[in-house]
Amino acid sequence: MAAAPSQTILFIILLHIFYIFVPSHQYHPLDSLTPSEFSQIRSIVTKAYPESSTHKLTFQYVGLEEPSKQTVISWLKNETTTNPPRQAFVIARIDHQTHELIVDLSLQEIASKRIYSGYGYPMFTFEDQENADKLAFTYPPFVASIRRRGLKLEEVVCESFSVGWYGAEEEEGKNKKRIVKVMCYYMNGTVNLFMRPIEGISMTVDLDEMKIIGFQDRVTVPVPKADETEFRESKIKPPFRQSLKAITVVQPDGPSFTIDGHMISFDVRAGMIISLASIYDLEKQQSRRVLYKGHVSEMFVPYMDLTEEWQRRTFFDAGEYGYGLCSMTLEPLRDCPPNAVFMDAYFSKQDGMPRKIPKAFCIFERYAGDIMWRHTEATIPGKTVREVRQDVSLVVRTVSTFGNYDYVNDWEFKQSGSIKVTVGLTGMVQVRGTTYTHKDHMEEDVYGTLVAENSIAIHHDHFLTYRLDLDVDGDANSFVRSKLRTTRVNDRRSSRKSYWTVDSKTAKTESDARIKLGSEPAELLFVNPNKKTKMGNLIGYRLIPEGVTGALLSSDDHPQIRAAFTNYNVWVTAYNKSEKWAGGLYADQSHGDDTLAVWSNRNRSIENKDIVLWYTLGFHHVPYQEDFPVMPTLNGGFELRPSNFFESNPVLKVKQPKEEYSP
Amino acid sequence: MAAAPSQTILFIILLHIFYIFVPSHQYHPLDSLTPSEFSQIRSIVTKAYPESSTHKLTFQYVGLEEPSKQTVISWLKNETTTNPPRQAFVIARIDHQTHELIVDLSLQEIASKRIYSGYGYPMFTFEDQENADKLAFTYPPFVASIRRRGLKLEEVVCESFSVGWYGAEEEEGKNKKRIVKVMCYYMNGTVNLFMRPIEGISMTVDLDEMKIIGFQDRVTVPVPKADETEFRESKIKPPFRQSLKAITVVQPDGPSFTIDGHMISFDVRAGMIISLASIYDLEKQQSRRVLYKGHVSEMFVPYMDLTEEWQRRTFFDAGEYGYGLCSMTLEPLRDCPPNAVFMDAYFSKQDGMPRKIPKAFCIFERYAGDIMWRHTEATIPGKTVREVRQDVSLVVRTVSTFGNYDYVNDWEFKQSGSIKVTVGLTGMVQVRGTTYTHKDHMEEDVYGTLVAENSIAIHHDHFLTYRLDLDVDGDANSFVRSKLRTTRVNDRRSSRKSYWTVDSKTAKTESDARIKLGSEPAELLFVNPNKKTKMGNLIGYRLIPEGVTGALLSSDDHPQIRAAFTNYNVWVTAYNKSEKWAGGLYADQSHGDDTLAVWSNRNRSIENKDIVLWYTLGFHHVPYQEDFPVMPTLNGGFELRPSNFFESNPVLKVKQPKEEYSP
Repeated sequence: MAAAPSQTILFIILLHIFYIFVPSHQYHPLDSLTPSEFSQIRSIVTKAYPESSTHKLTFQYVGLEEPSKQTVISWLKNETTTNPPRQAFVIARIDHQTHELIVDLSLQEIASKRIYSGYGYPMFTFEDQENADKLAFTYPPFVASIRRRGLKLEEVVCESFSVGWYGAEEEEGKNKKRIVKVMCYYMNGTVNLFMRPIEGISMTVDLDEMKIIGFQDRVTVPVPKADETEFRESKIKPPFRQSLKAITVVQPDGPSFTIDGHMISFDVRAGMIISLASIYDLEKQQSRRVLYKGHVSEMFVPYMDLTEEWQRRTFFDAGEYGYGLCSMTLEPLRDCPPNAVFMDAYFSKQDGMPRKIPKAFCIFERYAGDIMWRHTEATIPGKTVREVRQDVSLVVRTVSTFGNYDYVNDWEFKQSGSIKVTVGLTGMVQVRGTTYTHKDHMEEDVYGTLVAENSIAIHHDHFLTYRLDLDVDGDANSFVRSKLRTTRVNDRRSSRKSYWTVDSKTAKTESDARIKLGSEPAELLFVNPNKKTKMGNLIGYRLIPEGVTGALLSSDDHPQIRAAFTNYNVWVTAYNKSEKWAGGLYADQSHGDDTLAVWSNRNRSIENKDIVLWYTLGFHHVPYQEDFPVMPTLNGGFELRPSNFFESNPVLKVKQPKEEYSP
Repeated sequence: MAAAPSQTILFIILLHIFYIFVPSHQYHPLDSLTPSEFSQIRSIVTKAYPESSTHKLTFQYVGLEEPSKQTVISWLKNETTTNPPRQAFVIARIDHQTHELIVDLSLQEIASKRIYSGYGYPMFTFEDQENADKLAFTYPPFVASIRRRGLKLEEVVCESFSVGWYGAEEEEGKNKKRIVKVMCYYMNGTVNLFMRPIEGISMTVDLDEMKIIGFQDRVTVPVPKADETEFRESKIKPPFRQSLKAITVVQPDGPSFTIDGHMISFDVRAGMIISLASIYDLEKQQSRRVLYKGHVSEMFVPYMDLTEEWQRRTFFDAGEYGYGLCSMTLEPLRDCPPNAVFMDAYFSKQDGMPRKIPKAFCIFERYAGDIMWRHTEATIPGKTVREVRQDVSLVVRTVSTFGNYDYVNDWEFKQSGSIKVTVGLTGMVQVRGTTYTHKDHMEEDVYGTLVAENSIAIHHDHFLTYRLDLDVDGDANSFVRSKLRTTRVNDRRSSRKSYWTVDSKTAKTESDARIKLGSEPAELLFVNPNKKTKMGNLIGYRLIPEGVTGALLSSDDHPQIRAAFTNYNVWVTAYNKSEKWAGGLYADQSHGDDTLAVWSNRNRSIENKDIVLWYTLGFHHVPYQEDFPVMPTLNGGFELRPSNFFESNPVLKVKQPKEEYSP
């Protein structure tokens, strides 16, 4: 079992947290695949598709094929005595074809198989990228181009860029290939390579053949000197800021939670998955369901640069690069506070063997000095009453680094039942090399901000689309949009001429539930139409967005067709187990024919049904010099907050933690 | 001097924090008035206006009359050797008239005086309210009404409600009076009186005469039983939630800041004032100005209930009740973490004598487990580099409680130069008594949510308008609105059909700078047009709003005329020392003729001038049952973030605090 202090249970979130591979642990149908399961899957598949010189097999995706929701719920309720079958979903490339396999681990066989022949390709593996990046170094035209620039080959680092789809002839029909563009950086003695792009050179690599099929050295641009871009404390030159005095979080009796379950799991594409988040209702003396499953479904990061080597930079990071594959090891005491507990994660390498990401998750109780609730009652003559409760919550964190950018992903579970999701953007912004050294020299649109000499940080967006399979107190939910509407008062005896009222409408079909935020004030509720509070209010949870960032690309632009899931901030769809990835199962070079927007266009009924909320959190990023050479974290997020879910404030009866610290 | 650990300086914010009254301390022109100064002011004023039976003098407002900005800046730069004169601004009611006095403390005399004869009245004093609330208990019709309802008089608590202005005849001309409505609650053995309104009874009190001039017992509504509304831990009945284990913040070497200055001051109307916030620029080796002064200017809280006793509940809490007057003592370990330092505040009572609010402020370093910046460099073959810095910031907090509602006010200063302002709403929602006990029985608009039997929590808004006198690297600033605009690509050779560009426009006059958020994506920048980075970018700070809540009342509705400052989320005005209070200097019963909207209508030039940013943060509050009987904190806020203010990331060279805790 994963390392865990054995304390009493706690927290209103049922802390079913995360086993990874414990042969002896109690089975749970939503457990992440274990290393031994990855190995078994590999054996089963390689036996069925033996490799040979003409028969190349690569595992592009291996993840849990989860049992149906009804199966899981029945199992949880102990209505079935047998465990649901343990299955994996595998996407393999075999001889230039995409194979979808369901591998049954109980029966040790391939339960189903299918060749996919539609648009788009599966996620890149690390090996896809590493091998593609290496090709350049033995490719004479590239070597010559580097030499011609007076650069040292051993200081060059290359990276694979997805190419998207732009409607060109070679991208259609039989000529289409699984390709990436390889472009390179110059380290020049430091590790901050992203500040030293080598502009003008790009190579096209066929990933299935693993060879360079195109090369262009279009233009020579000075590699930015990028002085003062070193970010390692051990290498930075003085002066330093004076260090702060130590500050730390202490839990003398250990954490209040136990690691004893399955609430957190890991998927190489989605990264962290939160499952079966339930809340213990003190009044009802039972656990009540809130979120069946929540995770990042896709992330769309288009750059706004029309330069030849830049215009196709419209990344679908989850579907192309893997939000889980890019999960990074967390550093104790820095990435997470001293009271954090860490968990490893595993994924399948290209050859099917398991690979570990040590400390991929951290879990900690958070006390930021905030107040959960308070009141000073000063109205009663001669008496002052003051009651305050500290806000202590539980945070689960991962970090995903996509080349230059780092995303800090927090799911925070508050004692009040609120679930706050925050993403913090940090790391390096993408910089284009340029001849400019001062803004006054620039007469054209440079597509970004001159952040240093010869360095333009390019305008871009980040859209994170979350799939939130809410099951508020049960499967059957409805989506209610309560618009706040100014109402005119026509009664002349009234002092008032206006007030606002709440105009609640239940979405009947998917088209009723597409919302661009910012236009009209509204409460966005997931309710259980079959359950009411004692007062007769529908049991619900509401989405509280923190920003209102929407898509800016034209809807007919190819990247936007593929990212049509960002056309609205909020969508609600009928539950469909296969609709997980907002940009489609095959996001790389997709044509946008399998997006959330396409599914929603079926306009299914969503009233009193098992439904799914999709929320897109966006950032338009205009870089500033402060973002160079590493960006201070910029946060965005949203909250899911109980709204007539409880009969009253569920944290009224929370006592202050027993031991208070006397300073 | 205020209690303070004497550590070395810290934080990039120049920690000029807050002395209150230290006879021996070094003079600073922005110090809060000290108790001895309050006493001196009282002596000077009472000498000039001796009280008699016909001559009643009340101090409605006493605050620092600050020296001109140029005087303060010159003084700070040591350009003048003499201290600026120490003056106070006093608003007194003398014989039904509002007197404005400037009292010079150096000369010990009244430097100027004026009788105000326009619309509106000064802030209520505590004594105004306490005395008005008491009147009911000896007023026979009220006593009879309470008895008729079978209630015990000793369990009744009354409160004074501002009456606003609704254009009625008696509110105009010579008949206008300084009045409040007194309405009452029934404690019934607990202290949560706000859950037990006594509906139907209202009294009108003339504050200057201090007598009841109107009484109405319009209707009898059951007082809600309000079971389970006790919120004191010592009185709540089990079951309790299981306590969490202790969690605390420890700074073994003490805080990193020193309390040695004047950055925080206190005003009875504004509450906490942040002054002269500057940033130490490591590269330039100098302190650079950011915020000359920032504070809550007004708070507008209109209720959406047309019931007779409710329709005038459209509060201007800062201008009527005092954001500072309602500042509450903070509770160590609960309102603020164990590493907090506390500060007292003082204000003038109605008789001019000083009154202390013990522990009105707390100041602490905050480490919430967050990440200031990080990057994992995993692109370099055979090498992984990981650098992470903890996010430790400095927080200054006050809590203001306006009867039922508690506002937690945080100003957070980040090492990166960001200033984050957060307000947390907690306390009690206003509840109207009703006969309803179930939603299904309600056929009319009840103006709120049935949160418990006989208890409707009323729809309302909170608008907090902040006055932010930014002086970004100097006085002369411009406001730049950089709209992000979709641009069509017409070059057929391009892969792209669209991208977005930044269309920056400098506001010439005040009308160019009125912004309703949510409509168009834009960067909102305060720049110093006379200073550029080495790259040629204008030195700036930007406003990052967290929400987009706007006004919903009709613009011709009387409360909205008075609160016209909420018509836009963002305004920029020419600096004018007298334009401090967005709802006017005399907010009580104001007619809206002295609001931010009126000033902005002058349409002054604001380009390359000393200008002021006004930001309105709003909440539309649709209550839910979770808000009953005390509301879990709901946060809103905004960030002021350096944007080409520095040449590069100012926290690149921050070292990890030297002592790390090993768990």
